[in-house]
Amino acid sequence: MTERTHLSRRRLLTAAGTAGAAGLAVGTTTGALAHSAATDDPGPALTTLGSTAVPFHGDHQPGITTPMQAHGHLAAFDLVPGADRRAAAALLRRWSTLAAELMAGGRPETDTGVSHDAGPASLSVTFGFGHSFFDATGLTTARPAALEPLPAFSADELDPARSNGDLWIQIGADDALVAFHALRTLQRAAAETAAVRWQMTGFNRSPGATARPMTARNLMGQVDGTNNPRPEDDDFEARVFVPANGEPAWMARGSYAVVRRIRMLLDDWENRSLDEQERVIGRRKSDGAPLTGGEETTPVDLAATHPDGTGVIAANAHVRVTAPESNGGAAMLRRPFSYSDGFRDDGAPDAGLLFIAWQADPLRGFVPVQRKLDRGDALSEFIRHEASALFAVPGGAREGEYVGQALLEG
Amino acid sequence: MTERTHLSRRRLLTAAGTAGAAGLAVGTTTGALAHSAATDDPGPALTTLGSTAVPFHGDHQPGITTPMQAHGHLAAFDLVPGADRRAAAALLRRWSTLAAELMAGGRPETDTGVSHDAGPASLSVTFGFGHSFFDATGLTTARPAALEPLPAFSADELDPARSNGDLWIQIGADDALVAFHALRTLQRAAAETAAVRWQMTGFNRSPGATARPMTARNLMGQVDGTNNPRPEDDDFEARVFVPANGEPAWMARGSYAVVRRIRMLLDDWENRSLDEQERVIGRRKSDGAPLTGGEETTPVDLAATHPDGTGVIAANAHVRVTAPESNGGAAMLRRPFSYSDGFRDDGAPDAGLLFIAWQADPLRGFVPVQRKLDRGDALSEFIRHEASALFAVPGGAREGEYVGQALLEG
Repeated sequence: MTERTHLSRRRLLTAAGTAGAAGLAVGTTTGALAHSAATDDPGPALTTLGSTAVPFHGDHQPGITTPMQAHGHLAAFDLVPGADRRAAAALLRRWSTLAAELMAGGRPETDTGVSHDAGPASLSVTFGFGHSFFDATGLTTARPAALEPLPAFSADELDPARSNGDLWIQIGADDALVAFHALRTLQRAAAETAAVRWQMTGFNRSPGATARPMTARNLMGQVDGTNNPRPEDDDFEARVFVPANGEPAWMARGSYAVVRRIRMLLDDWENRSLDEQERVIGRRKSDGAPLTGGEETTPVDLAATHPDGTGVIAANAHVRVTAPESNGGAAMLRRPFSYSDGFRDDGAPDAGLLFIAWQADPLRGFVPVQRKLDRGDALSEFIRHEASALFAVPGGAREGEYVGQALLEG
Repeated sequence: MTERTHLSRRRLLTAAGTAGAAGLAVGTTTGALAHSAATDDPGPALTTLGSTAVPFHGDHQPGITTPMQAHGHLAAFDLVPGADRRAAAALLRRWSTLAAELMAGGRPETDTGVSHDAGPASLSVTFGFGHSFFDATGLTTARPAALEPLPAFSADELDPARSNGDLWIQIGADDALVAFHALRTLQRAAAETAAVRWQMTGFNRSPGATARPMTARNLMGQVDGTNNPRPEDDDFEARVFVPANGEPAWMARGSYAVVRRIRMLLDDWENRSLDEQERVIGRRKSDGAPLTGGEETTPVDLAATHPDGTGVIAANAHVRVTAPESNGGAAMLRRPFSYSDGFRDDGAPDAGLLFIAWQADPLRGFVPVQRKLDRGDALSEFIRHEASALFAVPGGAREGEYVGQALLEG
């Protein structure tokens, strides 16, 4: 099977379906490349959904500016007792090698075969280091100040067993078996060195399932992510990534991931009228447009008032509390997955958002925004933060190197 | 937005991508129709993945011969104390109305908005009745003999809390939010009448993710489903569906669903060599071809021997034990989802197969095959049946009617 065969078919599909799967998968800002899948014989060709490969190597790790995939796994690992810096380095090398291979559509030796004859389906694998990793490996002097534990927020109901962790893996793919295969392959490769501490599974829309591929909807039915920084913004790199000459040096071009499992109290939320829901958020539910008018991307007019002088956007509306102008310009790139883990004993859905926020510095991204939300967000009545973690995510690995090498061999 | 717009686009995509998403979604035996999604304005068009609608009304319920979707939810409900036949009838009417509306891409009143601006994405909703339903509603004289509890099997390790149930809903869709939305909408509609007993979530490949869309792979990496009855087989209808003049009359054109949650002991399985794995199954792992040669669809030669006289297909190979010729022609239509629910305390994946088998009579489909498997299947060492249920799934509803009407108003 030649790469060209795939390219021809892909171009055909792209031309025919730019608004859907093809448009989502190919029209990216990260330069995702299509790549031939490793199958034994040509067989029928994959569509773009299957054949799209995200590059593992580069300035930044994948899974940050990569378009959101339909399936995600988050897994935290703790080093087993006795696993030292050398063992951790060997693990990160194994993991990086496997991630690069899987993301390119290759098959590792002694593979389980679960993703056999599938394409990489935009698989991305991202690795991070938690606060406790540096104690476990004796690397405390290399620990970034930005990795200090997040402050407690009054509305937190955190489960320590599902929070934090020495190491973190974020997996995304547009196929569930490809995502499962990556998770299982990396877990197997951790054996003897690290064990799963917690694992969560999430999802986003399938490419082509929505007529509005630019916006995501969460499980409250709300358009979510409109005000995200965009890669074309002048300050995008500065907000999301540690500078190339930043501190510590091993975090150059890296980012910090805040992970929060946010359960939605859907029974309470869905009992509110559409009007009430829209006042809580400050946006129309149907299309995400601000209540001050326009369409989804129209800037919110926080100063607009009704004839009686009251604000159109309530003082505690989510869109006001989270607005960068309300937070000294603080901004983070939110790249979440929804989750649905069945029902609780009281019949309420165990469902919500695996909130993942990326920023160059959590003290100028997540923390100030969450402090404001904690004090006065109308939405907080309808959500519970049930788990929390913060990870240092180094810059991308170069060919032949592994993620975290500058830390572990520094 | 006209239906024609969608049709044109679909035809274009179908022509360009018959091997992938379009081929899977449109080239069906169930006559799935594309349908315009209910959005407020035209906006960008959906791809086939989003716009494909499965008909709710018909001879049979959807979700049986409908091509397997990428996402699935199974949910069992128990009637609340005091809910009688009349309340159950009202619930089935509400459920049927909602299912028809959602499957056509419509939006019910007081909708949560989660699938707003998405297409139906091949959503199917299937309803069934469990053994206990007939006690709860005083309809014991209408209970089919075929619904008698399955016999116990020696290898069962069944969790009663995740087994059986008065009512069953099977949801499938090619988009996770569409599937979640259907589950949540139907759960809300059950309020006051029935409560969730258990719920499981599963997945299959995304359309277009694999170059071999005809075969599914399970989480052992094995091609699974090759020997399924095919709708074009002469005896397909007779094996899968109760005849139009069958007994009881309210089950005419219906089917019986055996649901088993089968955990895979992946640590044990993956430690076996490829040779050992292939001997356990009797097929090549790479492409599912029988060990007696040919390709996936080549019939297995159960009589073939090695030069030393031993059978090529071992006496306890899964493919031999499950072969219709080993079971007096017993056959069932398997239409499963894989599941992955994280990791157990010992680090093993809580993952496997939500096995769903469809047949006109469980005593001539699942039961004889499972009896043989229970006694002598090499695969049984690597799996655990953790939950089990059996449901009577009536024929499809006509326009204006609801599923189970002939039972509940009979």
